[in-house]
Amino acid sequence: MKSMSVKSLQTGSVIGMLGGGQLGRMMAMSAAQLGFHTHIYCPDERNPGEQVTDKLTRKAYDDREALSVFAQSVDVVTYEFENIPVESVRFLEQHVAVYPSADVLEIAQDRLFEKDFLNKNGIATAAYRAVNTVEEAVDAVAEIGLPAVLKTRRFGYDGKGQVIVRKAEDVPAAWDALGNDRIIVEGFVPFRMEISVLAARGQDGEVCCFTPVENQHKNHILDKSIAPARISADLQEAAVDMATTIITALNYVGLLAVEMFVSDDEPQLRVNEIAPRVHNSGHWTIEACATSQFEQHIRAVCGLPLGGVDLYAQAVMTNLIGDDILQYNDLLREAGANVHHYGKSQARPGRKMGHVTRLYPLGQKLPG
Amino acid sequence: MKSMSVKSLQTGSVIGMLGGGQLGRMMAMSAAQLGFHTHIYCPDERNPGEQVTDKLTRKAYDDREALSVFAQSVDVVTYEFENIPVESVRFLEQHVAVYPSADVLEIAQDRLFEKDFLNKNGIATAAYRAVNTVEEAVDAVAEIGLPAVLKTRRFGYDGKGQVIVRKAEDVPAAWDALGNDRIIVEGFVPFRMEISVLAARGQDGEVCCFTPVENQHKNHILDKSIAPARISADLQEAAVDMATTIITALNYVGLLAVEMFVSDDEPQLRVNEIAPRVHNSGHWTIEACATSQFEQHIRAVCGLPLGGVDLYAQAVMTNLIGDDILQYNDLLREAGANVHHYGKSQARPGRKMGHVTRLYPLGQKLPG
Repeated sequence: MKSMSVKSLQTGSVIGMLGGGQLGRMMAMSAAQLGFHTHIYCPDERNPGEQVTDKLTRKAYDDREALSVFAQSVDVVTYEFENIPVESVRFLEQHVAVYPSADVLEIAQDRLFEKDFLNKNGIATAAYRAVNTVEEAVDAVAEIGLPAVLKTRRFGYDGKGQVIVRKAEDVPAAWDALGNDRIIVEGFVPFRMEISVLAARGQDGEVCCFTPVENQHKNHILDKSIAPARISADLQEAAVDMATTIITALNYVGLLAVEMFVSDDEPQLRVNEIAPRVHNSGHWTIEACATSQFEQHIRAVCGLPLGGVDLYAQAVMTNLIGDDILQYNDLLREAGANVHHYGKSQARPGRKMGHVTRLYPLGQKLPG
Repeated sequence: MKSMSVKSLQTGSVIGMLGGGQLGRMMAMSAAQLGFHTHIYCPDERNPGEQVTDKLTRKAYDDREALSVFAQSVDVVTYEFENIPVESVRFLEQHVAVYPSADVLEIAQDRLFEKDFLNKNGIATAAYRAVNTVEEAVDAVAEIGLPAVLKTRRFGYDGKGQVIVRKAEDVPAAWDALGNDRIIVEGFVPFRMEISVLAARGQDGEVCCFTPVENQHKNHILDKSIAPARISADLQEAAVDMATTIITALNYVGLLAVEMFVSDDEPQLRVNEIAPRVHNSGHWTIEACATSQFEQHIRAVCGLPLGGVDLYAQAVMTNLIGDDILQYNDLLREAGANVHHYGKSQARPGRKMGHVTRLYPLGQKLPG
């Protein structure tokens, strides 16, 4: 157990951020609103974050010399995505505080470590088995039952790195499609809804969760998030309790997204995955709460008190993926639409180009 | 009358901004949210805007060479404050579209031009007389009556550049205190409230006004803005009509702040002054409306449709002036407080360091 001592940063301090995508961009804007400077470290040319940050280092994530200079120029480090080399984060930790920690990152990067950790802490997940050969995969599927999902243990996102298997004879083809020998076989969870809880934990151990949000996907990519999730108050509370257990067990600092499946059968809630960062399913908090997920994360990593998360309104966040961004001008004409454009110049298929959030009075039935 | 043709900028275009204070900073963040790049031109070292802009030029406002390079690097120009040399704006207009125009700026920079313009358009103001000598000032005060206010015609803000005169024999001392020979003498308007209307006008001539907001001052500096202003619906409508008349007569593009005095006697509304820019009394729109004043301004200067301005909630915005910023940590602990820190390192007396906005359900009586 690490110490609970809090080092509150003064405004004007510099927050280092690994990654310059839309999440880093929105974190940088929240940091600025709170009076902090930002320094984004990102290998990508023309990244969305660089447009709103004080300083930028464009170097590879494994460039020790650049990381060292970066560490010396900032007061704390955080990151916007989990596919950063753990070794780089460990290296940074020798020079500067990093939140969430490398230990957390290591767990969250690997579906096996993640599921082991969750189950060890009494959190229900899908049945799972780690496998390293196609033969082991066939055995695991036989044991877990069909349908099953083969997933790469690392670097999966938006449905990439996973294949669903409905018949036993399809396992070899699925194995070949993934082209990886660090695979996890998961039982298929029949669910009626996917939700997520955006949980935050401060350096003092205080935990604060946003109300659970309902997530709807299209082509394996998040399409809509609806807050609050349309589940019973008991289930909402259970989901928040689960997220609280996880974030506390991780000794986490910052914002953590916990994705869960909601089933009619017991257990009604199973955790699908956790993301050690701000999350697409939390964008609605910008408009619907006094404190957004981005601000909450910045508060936590800076050792500041967490902010209020009561809902001003119900919210529906819709992603603008690829050519959806062509709706931009129409959306600007829609009186209640809060339009966010990530400043990316090319609208490739599947690329998250922006999002729009619409608010509705609390207690009112949502349209559609 | 200029042409009403609209040049809609594509996302990714660059908005040039003269001035890098907190207004420029918040405009730059709104521009980013809409997918635009920003280039701030500002002579000041360590200005709040530079922390969130893509590009920065730190040169004097009258540096023609630097202005010329700046003009070539941007797709449109706007500004965050009115004390920029009109000649510089005229120079920029030869190279790139500037909103609001130099013609508008020239009127808004000078209290005499402003009052002449307003009265010519049937808008009530205080009685006024331009004077160039102390003798003329004495005569003007005799004519207008006591109390009266002597103001410099240009460069006044936050109560600077004005002296109230309660006795005729005090005019010479007031004259000396101002140390300027371009003075306007204004009759004192007995008012029960000061309000402002944040009006926006698009390149197509569409006008859209935020609901009138009530302003309370301390030491001549805005302390609180309360939206909506606690006046009758008829007066609210009259105020919006007045602002619409003004912004249309100016052939204005962008956001215009119109400050008005509310009296029990006729005329119940008199315009105090106009500011050709986003305004401190409009900060509450960030949280309380789908479109903030900053976003509305960016939409207008980019030739995009104006956004919705309905109130999600009542709002009270409180400025954090000078040492008020020491409340920062306490405010972070207040669940419903939306805290904005402008990133300024030194808290000098009278300096605007940040603001906090609190929302209250519509129709509910405000506390305090």
